[in-house]
Amino acid sequence: MTVLDRFYEGDIRALSKVISYVENQQDRYRELLGRLFRQGGHSLRVGLTGPPGAGKSTLVNCLARAFLKQNKKVGVIAVDPTSPFTGGALLGDRVRMNDFPSDGRFYFRSMATRGALGGLAATTDNITVVYDSFGFDVTLIETVGVGQIELDIINTCDVVVVILVPESGDSVQTMKAGLMEIADIFCVNKADREGSDRLIMELRQTLDTRKKIENAWRVPVISTVGIQNKNIDRLIMKLEEFVAFQKESGKFEKHRKTQLKKKIENILQEKISGIILDKMKEFADFDKIITDMYEGKTDPYTLAGELFDRVSR
Amino acid sequence: MTVLDRFYEGDIRALSKVISYVENQQDRYRELLGRLFRQGGHSLRVGLTGPPGAGKSTLVNCLARAFLKQNKKVGVIAVDPTSPFTGGALLGDRVRMNDFPSDGRFYFRSMATRGALGGLAATTDNITVVYDSFGFDVTLIETVGVGQIELDIINTCDVVVVILVPESGDSVQTMKAGLMEIADIFCVNKADREGSDRLIMELRQTLDTRKKIENAWRVPVISTVGIQNKNIDRLIMKLEEFVAFQKESGKFEKHRKTQLKKKIENILQEKISGIILDKMKEFADFDKIITDMYEGKTDPYTLAGELFDRVSR
Repeated sequence: MTVLDRFYEGDIRALSKVISYVENQQDRYRELLGRLFRQGGHSLRVGLTGPPGAGKSTLVNCLARAFLKQNKKVGVIAVDPTSPFTGGALLGDRVRMNDFPSDGRFYFRSMATRGALGGLAATTDNITVVYDSFGFDVTLIETVGVGQIELDIINTCDVVVVILVPESGDSVQTMKAGLMEIADIFCVNKADREGSDRLIMELRQTLDTRKKIENAWRVPVISTVGIQNKNIDRLIMKLEEFVAFQKESGKFEKHRKTQLKKKIENILQEKISGIILDKMKEFADFDKIITDMYEGKTDPYTLAGELFDRVSR
Repeated sequence: MTVLDRFYEGDIRALSKVISYVENQQDRYRELLGRLFRQGGHSLRVGLTGPPGAGKSTLVNCLARAFLKQNKKVGVIAVDPTSPFTGGALLGDRVRMNDFPSDGRFYFRSMATRGALGGLAATTDNITVVYDSFGFDVTLIETVGVGQIELDIINTCDVVVVILVPESGDSVQTMKAGLMEIADIFCVNKADREGSDRLIMELRQTLDTRKKIENAWRVPVISTVGIQNKNIDRLIMKLEEFVAFQKESGKFEKHRKTQLKKKIENILQEKISGIILDKMKEFADFDKIITDMYEGKTDPYTLAGELFDRVSR
């Protein structure tokens, strides 16, 4: 039996191998992804983001458990964009894995830049394709912060939960404006702590001051206590409500189509990057040219123009 | 007199116009940048980064003032990658500008994603080229955090100062590993506050545990109090020491050359993106294709392959 045969039978080790294959961009991996893509399309992609210390991992675990209880299969991707510096993955991955079934109903993968040849966002998206065709009903994507990469990742999700905590304090103030724009659901976690009522009120007030758009989704603010598994059912209810709303309004399909266009663009760009690097090597005296450039005898804009002519010729 | 004539005469309004021209990628802006590039090469690029609330803006102002006192001309670029959400720029830009001479010895520009057609990092780098040819001796680039975009921006600098404060607390813990890798100089700001001695000690200890590389720069940890203009001279001294070290060891030139290669690559990629978008439009029934894709009849990987064949033909 091939790895792919075992993959289709729900073998978790085969899944792991396929993901590594895609991550490492091995021979004809795009062909494989194309095939997997055409067999998928059913998995709901839920993005969860928020500042460090908001309890994202705990909430993701709670959600995964709750979905499993509903007899759904769940895949998790935890993305850590700060890791290019350390090469490390998120803390406690192994600990987190142990609690969950290993019979093919659950899988957890953490992603760091070093493991993602084609970039973190592209690789994350490719893994959602693998998860989807593997048969996961829900894909939970966990990411820190609101930088451009996180934003790219979050944009591939069908629904975005922004998780905050009372003590996020000043840093949250800074991020709030950004988080306001991407949240479909606000979740104030560690809500048993002081200041949570105020944070919830502030969030609701800020949301209320936004321009009212007719028939728009009203972003709810809910409170949870992840470590006590409290209000997870409410979070799931809101997720379901949002997805139903999106599907009814046609926005779900529209959003996915926009993502597909973006994805085509990204794949093309990645393919073309390869050509560029090859063309640059064709300049036998490239180092000399760079030295000239350093000395101001030529410039990168002119040289790029020349290289461009070669590529498009 | 043309705008460019006035630019070369040091007219600050002409500088502002040239920057907008480059930001908006107006007609033949790359030709202009090429010309400006060949006339520059003298400005030192100093990157300053750190978590929100570290007092980066204040320190940048202090540094600018100190360099002005040395009869150096100073350009500042403040980059706010979170602003794609808000469209807004950094707080208090106007306030910050008022204190400084407007006779061409100082300029301040804040950058948000919306104003940067070609991406935040690329546009920031293009502005450094403009600053350089305008005659600024020092370019200070201020950015928040350590996401990929910030990292790209920081990579274009000759020297990187990481600014921390005692109360950064947990969030700094999270970032520390990343900041360790990019810092040429650590600056503990607001050093009059409790906990600064501990932070300085911690940083020094962590730096000491790193593998010793022969003839490598030893990253110093200094303390400042920005609002009291305290120890700014020490910061400048360390900046000068680092630059001297880099130049002597040949690393300064090597680093700039690496940046130039990367820049050529980026310019090419941007040019080619334009072609890709054009080619995509050539598919008369593109919306139908996307609908098929949404329904799983085709996939983005296969389509990108077909488009790629058209581009490279």
